[in-house]
Amino acid sequence: MSTCVFCQIAANLLPSIRIHETESLICLLPLEMEVKGHTLVVTKQHYADLREIPPVLGAEIFAVIQKMARHYAKALGATGFNILNANDASAQQSVPHLHFHYIPRVAGDGVDSWPRFPQYDGDKAALAKLLQF
Amino acid sequence: MSTCVFCQIAANLLPSIRIHETESLICLLPLEMEVKGHTLVVTKQHYADLREIPPVLGAEIFAVIQKMARHYAKALGATGFNILNANDASAQQSVPHLHFHYIPRVAGDGVDSWPRFPQYDGDKAALAKLLQF
Repeated sequence: MSTCVFCQIAANLLPSIRIHETESLICLLPLEMEVKGHTLVVTKQHYADLREIPPVLGAEIFAVIQKMARHYAKALGATGFNILNANDASAQQSVPHLHFHYIPRVAGDGVDSWPRFPQYDGDKAALAKLLQF
Repeated sequence: MSTCVFCQIAANLLPSIRIHETESLICLLPLEMEVKGHTLVVTKQHYADLREIPPVLGAEIFAVIQKMARHYAKALGATGFNILNANDASAQQSVPHLHFHYIPRVAGDGVDSWPRFPQYDGDKAALAKLLQF
């Protein structure tokens, strides 16, 4: 049996509070809810992160996010939302099974969803040459 | 003419440092680079946010992110990455034209990509009933 928490939730071997389900995805409440309505979108199949999924799954992911946005607008009065996603332990991914954090937002909610980054002020033109693909 | 900055960039009416381009997307360096290699994935067509796109565009978005991840691993030694996205001014979306922030990461880079959220400890079961869709 897989020791992956999200695989065990998908297989109903661990309890979870499910909000919605599609062919390939489960939407559930996280153990630690960062803001009211914070929801995870998790693949049923095990993919370590975004690099492993068939890109076509993106259509299903965005479709469910759009439905969630419409419903949470009514249910919570949320006018906006953030999508946060980490890939690899080096990017602070806590559970190595692909998931997206959906953070409902409303004007003046006092939430700051933008991380504190160190800023980079090196040579952009040289960097761009390195990064082009 | 549109006054939208990303529409003007897409139409080559404003300069930008482009990293990559696909049929529907441009990848470019942001004016304020949060970490080395911070890159924006922007739709060529104007969509205010994720709620407006045809979900099928998700396949192209994830495909380009996967290519970026492979290339940035070689170019920057990045072992992981974060995807950050805001929808609506209430969610701190700065430019009201859909875009994703790609933040390259490497173990021990000292970056903290997780925002400081207030936490919510209300009744999850009651909340789940409200949120189910």
